[in-house]
Amino acid sequence: MGKQLVINDVTLRDGMHAISHQYSKEQIAELTRLLDDSGVDIIEATHGDGLGGSSIQYGFSKETEDDIIRTAVENAKNAKVGVLLLPGVGTIEHLENAHQLGAQVVRVATHCTEADVSEQHIKAGVRLGMDTVGFLMMSHRTSPENLLEEAKKMESYGAQTIYVVDSAGALTMDDVRSRVSLFKQHLSTKIGFHAHNNLSLGVANSIVAIQEGVDRIDASLAGMGAGAGNAALEQLVAVMNRMGISHNVDLYKVMDAAENVMKPMMVRPVQIDRLSLMLGYTGVYSSFLLFAERAGKEYGVDARDILVKIAEMNAVGGQEDWIIGVAQDLAKEKQIKRGIEI
Amino acid sequence: MGKQLVINDVTLRDGMHAISHQYSKEQIAELTRLLDDSGVDIIEATHGDGLGGSSIQYGFSKETEDDIIRTAVENAKNAKVGVLLLPGVGTIEHLENAHQLGAQVVRVATHCTEADVSEQHIKAGVRLGMDTVGFLMMSHRTSPENLLEEAKKMESYGAQTIYVVDSAGALTMDDVRSRVSLFKQHLSTKIGFHAHNNLSLGVANSIVAIQEGVDRIDASLAGMGAGAGNAALEQLVAVMNRMGISHNVDLYKVMDAAENVMKPMMVRPVQIDRLSLMLGYTGVYSSFLLFAERAGKEYGVDARDILVKIAEMNAVGGQEDWIIGVAQDLAKEKQIKRGIEI
Repeated sequence: MGKQLVINDVTLRDGMHAISHQYSKEQIAELTRLLDDSGVDIIEATHGDGLGGSSIQYGFSKETEDDIIRTAVENAKNAKVGVLLLPGVGTIEHLENAHQLGAQVVRVATHCTEADVSEQHIKAGVRLGMDTVGFLMMSHRTSPENLLEEAKKMESYGAQTIYVVDSAGALTMDDVRSRVSLFKQHLSTKIGFHAHNNLSLGVANSIVAIQEGVDRIDASLAGMGAGAGNAALEQLVAVMNRMGISHNVDLYKVMDAAENVMKPMMVRPVQIDRLSLMLGYTGVYSSFLLFAERAGKEYGVDARDILVKIAEMNAVGGQEDWIIGVAQDLAKEKQIKRGIEI
Repeated sequence: MGKQLVINDVTLRDGMHAISHQYSKEQIAELTRLLDDSGVDIIEATHGDGLGGSSIQYGFSKETEDDIIRTAVENAKNAKVGVLLLPGVGTIEHLENAHQLGAQVVRVATHCTEADVSEQHIKAGVRLGMDTVGFLMMSHRTSPENLLEEAKKMESYGAQTIYVVDSAGALTMDDVRSRVSLFKQHLSTKIGFHAHNNLSLGVANSIVAIQEGVDRIDASLAGMGAGAGNAALEQLVAVMNRMGISHNVDLYKVMDAAENVMKPMMVRPVQIDRLSLMLGYTGVYSSFLLFAERAGKEYGVDARDILVKIAEMNAVGGQEDWIIGVAQDLAKEKQIKRGIEI
């Protein structure tokens, strides 16, 4: 037990970002059935920003939170259904409701240096008898040693698994190795890793994490997820098969689901383009991507310049409103320059 | 000297495959100027299958071999221009002509177990005073120890640099490490690595190779290359910058060239799709891709099944004609099955 790698699919949660939270019930049902049939262990299904995320600030989801979770639960025969919970966005009431609807896994997510805010929510997950996970986002933003200190807090609250989360796809393979190996040495919990592909290292980083001994790994069909997407499930499975890493997923089924079902649903290609590469390079939060693109267009400035500024401001998740200010400042600078030139 | 990593761009050679060898002189000129200006050290410009490749068997290039090389040479102010030479496809006469036109680098390419055939061509390159490279294709198809034996042959012929070439994008990071480290221990030549991205490991494998001490690395704008493409230059540079690896390339310039110039030129997206993933998974040569797709359509069979069969037959490059036979056999099997079902 605990030896077999657990695959936590995020197609229906992180993937929500890439479809502006607009999956329909029919799409959720179809994707859940395919993922479940392919042997995925956990299917996370929530608004991209977690429970309570459907709002004017984070964007409304097409379906209600209840319908998203219920549809996933109804269509998953073998896989457990999970939910994401960002304290401050979602509440313990949201969690109790999700549990009521049949969710069995909860991932309580905080910025990598703010594990303290997860205490009540992790304890609530444990009290509900859920598979309770601590999820340390933007793990590149602090040292491996500090990250471990934060993880220990989550461990003390009762988290059974703790994740190194590379939200911006900014970790190199060495960065992953140092963080996971430290967790492995000093935590008694299980360990997980969540990749993004901004630097084209999503699958490679996941493999490094597996080699360093993680118990769980995240992936999504065709990489469906914020920014440049996550580790693509079908690519990760292909590499794991070639390396003889044991897991429960059928390669051909996820290849077909990615190609025939997931890709046609995409409203924009999930890929590494100039902007998402910049996200990984600067280490800015993936959820800034669409906002930066939009603000760049609106104010006639380069979205790259916005991201560089945001990175310098040491932004964390949830500060998307800074972007407008930055875009306005950049536009003003441009105007001033133009004025001088004239 | 020899400490700074040399970037060998293959946008105009491996990238030829992805555009069916149809780059125009204008496109070659523009890409050469951008690559040269970005600081790339070597620009390889040849038909995808090397000197003499423009033929009914490998596909005719839009421009003549002379025009391809001449255009690159004329537009490269600082970078050296290189050519690829597969003995049997190209000849020493082709090489002498390329040298005459201004090519300064030659890479003599053989299947990983057939270094013997490179002797005369490597010696010709050395005699011409060219930067002469041995290029061991499909390096996943033999053990690290055998690959070293083949490399030693090339070393004995006078090759100054020898490459581990992952033609099918089938090497894992451990596979790269074992091969490069063995080369590093036992060869007195410089060492290079050429990646393909079929398993999503193109950039990661290149980084592993750099960490194991290679002197040269291949990449291309937006990954432009056969199959799932090569390591994307702009992604590789971003990761190298983050890791403090020293090189001569300007990140923003290659990001812009990839996004604004290379991607709009692509006739099909260079990406990991079901078929190119299968190429990496089965380890079949990338040049089989378009042929398998075409034969699959023509005979109404799954191109994946063609690739699996081809892999079982232990095919090497240049056996694209097997594909038709396999497709016909599969179609026949399908008919028989259908007959039985009826």
